[in-house]
Amino acid sequence: MREGVLYGVSVGPGDPELLTLKAVRVIREADVVAVPDCGGKRQMAYAIAFEYLVGKQVLDCQTHMTGNRVAANESYTRIADDICALLDEGKSVAYLSLGDVSIYSTFAYVQRIVRERGYETEIIPGVASFCAAAARLGEPLCEGSECLVVAPPFSPYIDQVLELPATKVFMKSGRQLNVLRDTLGKRGELEHASMVANCGLPDERVYPRFADAEAPAGYFAVVIAKKTDGQK
Amino acid sequence: MREGVLYGVSVGPGDPELLTLKAVRVIREADVVAVPDCGGKRQMAYAIAFEYLVGKQVLDCQTHMTGNRVAANESYTRIADDICALLDEGKSVAYLSLGDVSIYSTFAYVQRIVRERGYETEIIPGVASFCAAAARLGEPLCEGSECLVVAPPFSPYIDQVLELPATKVFMKSGRQLNVLRDTLGKRGELEHASMVANCGLPDERVYPRFADAEAPAGYFAVVIAKKTDGQK
Repeated sequence: MREGVLYGVSVGPGDPELLTLKAVRVIREADVVAVPDCGGKRQMAYAIAFEYLVGKQVLDCQTHMTGNRVAANESYTRIADDICALLDEGKSVAYLSLGDVSIYSTFAYVQRIVRERGYETEIIPGVASFCAAAARLGEPLCEGSECLVVAPPFSPYIDQVLELPATKVFMKSGRQLNVLRDTLGKRGELEHASMVANCGLPDERVYPRFADAEAPAGYFAVVIAKKTDGQK
Repeated sequence: MREGVLYGVSVGPGDPELLTLKAVRVIREADVVAVPDCGGKRQMAYAIAFEYLVGKQVLDCQTHMTGNRVAANESYTRIADDICALLDEGKSVAYLSLGDVSIYSTFAYVQRIVRERGYETEIIPGVASFCAAAARLGEPLCEGSECLVVAPPFSPYIDQVLELPATKVFMKSGRQLNVLRDTLGKRGELEHASMVANCGLPDERVYPRFADAEAPAGYFAVVIAKKTDGQK
């Protein structure tokens, strides 16, 4: 019997209409759909793709948003074990991932383990949440010779990121929104920063002025600070 | 009569299956489809969405990839004139854009003019070409606390970009691939750089080692240099 294939399927940022045709096909054709379950995420990826999941075998994947690397790796190994058992049965598995799989997804960790064990994997790209947030704000991210940088506010290189004359996208900001607001304020960049939380979801909140945003906005807040002409 | 709406519709990097459900709907519902026509681009955006364009009124938009800012702005104003004339007739217009509209698209310039004239515009986000390239290479762009930077090699801030400990995506590299290769080579980053040209198109070329890539690879080459553990 031929082994199944593991697909990392991007489901986009929230609006079910932002699934790609390919994502819909791969989810429909998959024998099993794996859904990450962590801090409300299960509900999100599951809800976005819900229309295509009716009657499907669903594998719940418990991940842990923890600073503890060992515990996190253990959870990825457990997920990989479950997935490989299905692949051995010849089943194909579609692992759902919010936004685009390549951007801060747990799939990267799971895929690495599964691939190292010799199984075939494939990634279906999708709409990154910061692209959807920019679209919602009606503003481009980069034009001409401009640069774009994407970073979590807790990056060890945040000072270098802030110094770069580029449009800056801050992701995974949830718990650090106030700190980020203070930092941008001190640098005189707050007036050019916007925020979109839960983009495309029923509880979406759009703040053209990040300064006006209420905190906490939840984990899925994207802050976009535009390069200003004043920046050297 | 109600004025029409201008939509900036992302058609993704090349594979027609990477259109979103929303892009398909908006293109289908639009009265007119505007197609940028510049250096082979018309054929690309047109070809990607071809299935939904049969029998449609198509507006060809001549843009100029020129260093001459005045000439470029003139072409955007001409496109805006043509589009606004259609909007005045109550027609909705879907302007097709390769990859994601927010990333280096001519739509940003056209949209600005049309919006300043008081018309309604809306952006439909899509799959950015660098997300598709990363998917094709089977490698994530950023994980955990990592940063991602997107830049054209001719950015005036390229040295700062290169210094940032981040995954680096170089776009619009076509004519500068050799220079970019030399630069990455001198910095010891060439071994961790990959390239995908014309991702998802029939003439797609994937080079897991950028060092092996033939030049010129055409305008739609994406080079991805992964952050290495050696980078501070």
